[in-house]
Amino acid sequence: MRNKLSAPPTAEDISLAYKRIKSYIHETPVFTSELINRQIGNQLFFKCENMQKAGAFKSRGVFNALLQLSDEEKKQGIITHSSGNHAQALARAAGLLGIKAIIVMPSNAPQIKKDAVRDYGAEIHFCEPTLNARESTVRQLIEKTGATEIHPYNNYEVITGQATCLYEETSKDINYDYILAPVGGGGLLSGTALTASYYMPRTKVLGCEPDKADDAYRSFISRNLIPSVNPNTIADGLLTSLGDKTFPIIIDHVDSILTVSEEIIVKAMRLIWERMKLVIEPSSAVPLAVLLEKKLQVKEQNILIILSGGNVDLTKLPWNQNK
Amino acid sequence: MRNKLSAPPTAEDISLAYKRIKSYIHETPVFTSELINRQIGNQLFFKCENMQKAGAFKSRGVFNALLQLSDEEKKQGIITHSSGNHAQALARAAGLLGIKAIIVMPSNAPQIKKDAVRDYGAEIHFCEPTLNARESTVRQLIEKTGATEIHPYNNYEVITGQATCLYEETSKDINYDYILAPVGGGGLLSGTALTASYYMPRTKVLGCEPDKADDAYRSFISRNLIPSVNPNTIADGLLTSLGDKTFPIIIDHVDSILTVSEEIIVKAMRLIWERMKLVIEPSSAVPLAVLLEKKLQVKEQNILIILSGGNVDLTKLPWNQNK
Repeated sequence: MRNKLSAPPTAEDISLAYKRIKSYIHETPVFTSELINRQIGNQLFFKCENMQKAGAFKSRGVFNALLQLSDEEKKQGIITHSSGNHAQALARAAGLLGIKAIIVMPSNAPQIKKDAVRDYGAEIHFCEPTLNARESTVRQLIEKTGATEIHPYNNYEVITGQATCLYEETSKDINYDYILAPVGGGGLLSGTALTASYYMPRTKVLGCEPDKADDAYRSFISRNLIPSVNPNTIADGLLTSLGDKTFPIIIDHVDSILTVSEEIIVKAMRLIWERMKLVIEPSSAVPLAVLLEKKLQVKEQNILIILSGGNVDLTKLPWNQNK
Repeated sequence: MRNKLSAPPTAEDISLAYKRIKSYIHETPVFTSELINRQIGNQLFFKCENMQKAGAFKSRGVFNALLQLSDEEKKQGIITHSSGNHAQALARAAGLLGIKAIIVMPSNAPQIKKDAVRDYGAEIHFCEPTLNARESTVRQLIEKTGATEIHPYNNYEVITGQATCLYEETSKDINYDYILAPVGGGGLLSGTALTASYYMPRTKVLGCEPDKADDAYRSFISRNLIPSVNPNTIADGLLTSLGDKTFPIIIDHVDSILTVSEEIIVKAMRLIWERMKLVIEPSSAVPLAVLLEKKLQVKEQNILIILSGGNVDLTKLPWNQNK
């Protein structure tokens, strides 16, 4: 894996990244719901990365990384292992920029995700469904092809790209008391926390995580990087564990990690679908779930929630599973 | 039923209505999708009335009617027969303005719709599920209570309110070649066509309707008001027939009515959910379905589609019904 930045991005790195990727991404809208505000007792603002290109914030990090590759690197192609939103965003962006992309996926990945990546023109290599197999497959392919790895989160260019999500809101007039973002590998959370530290220093940034995939919580309170063991949550975007680049940023700039049960995640997801008419994936519902379950006991505060993505299999919705 | 206007609204009536209701409704966003544009071969703009208050454009007409009631009328309350979006919008608006609302519903209306109306604080009267029973129940209750009827579409104040949806877009910089709106009773279509005639005289307005509820199409080509007989479509907001106030406006100002099959309506609905991450009801998908089925053969035109509403039972989605 290559990194152009050797340390977390500065405020200038983030504003330069935003200029770099601006024409390739959506400036996503922010919506509110009076009904949900009344229910929660705070003013909530929902930043709609579910409406981002390829359906998730991942397009930001991916474009920021790809647009900084040298001509030589572009020629040799890029590679990653992922079966989720990062894979789709990378496949799409690479296709658009004329870069060859190889995606390493576990052989048991859902057909719908294989199809999406292939539709964007990427080459898929299958491997056994273990982290070891994924990583060794990537290493072998890099040796063979000279491709550059674009890691889903443990990469400073990617983190800088994710930081542009909150950066878009810094030019607006709202003073946020809190920002809540879901946390899986920590790319979105660390980028968001850095942007807040530079541009909204009085705003608290909280990471939100399922009880059943609480490695960030355990790592945060113990100040030691503790990977997840067999995480199992409906919030399938949050199964990954923090990395050695995201964890220190989170320790330095995040105020707290809050966790929540599966049942409330589904309830929060449904509330956003029904009342806001937004298609979001379960991972996006975790911050609202934290508020529904009163894990943050505040009143009349301005709270920005990042809806991280909207890629969900419409034939397998959680409220239809137990019928 | 009372009407303050005795003729279709003028341009000034529409701009006054917009000022009247502005603080009670959302100025809804307009979204685009590059992928759908490529698929259709035109530039599509989706006006998101699914994100309107109470989840449908109906809030516009309802507020415009209620805000013009006299104090005496407000005291005696309002009444309508509807089990759909009009009922919910009316119940919500009346509750907010402190006006007593009676909603007449067929006894077999879905529980989810009864609950929604009751949650907004309206009084429900049940009747047999026939148009005759609904109308006679309304008449009896008006005699008893002195309530004012607010018809879902055959009412000039309501039509004027629906006309404000397109009016919001007249101040923007896009020149639309076509505007496509679904048509049931014709409130949205007639209001939209009037606004276009005043503010976008070169823009063509098309009504879009399911094959299986094609009364507007048959009325339009025969120039005679022909009500639907046993309409049966997944687009449950479009089961009603044109009225004697909406029909003449449609004859004068609408360019054409296009119809489409059930299968393509579901396909269009799913495309908007998956690619735009918007929860829309089947009625909202009818205009895109018309384009998918190539019922309008044009290329590289600017087309505004009104997504009329987003109230749908999330446990009964059409793509899960045949499994």
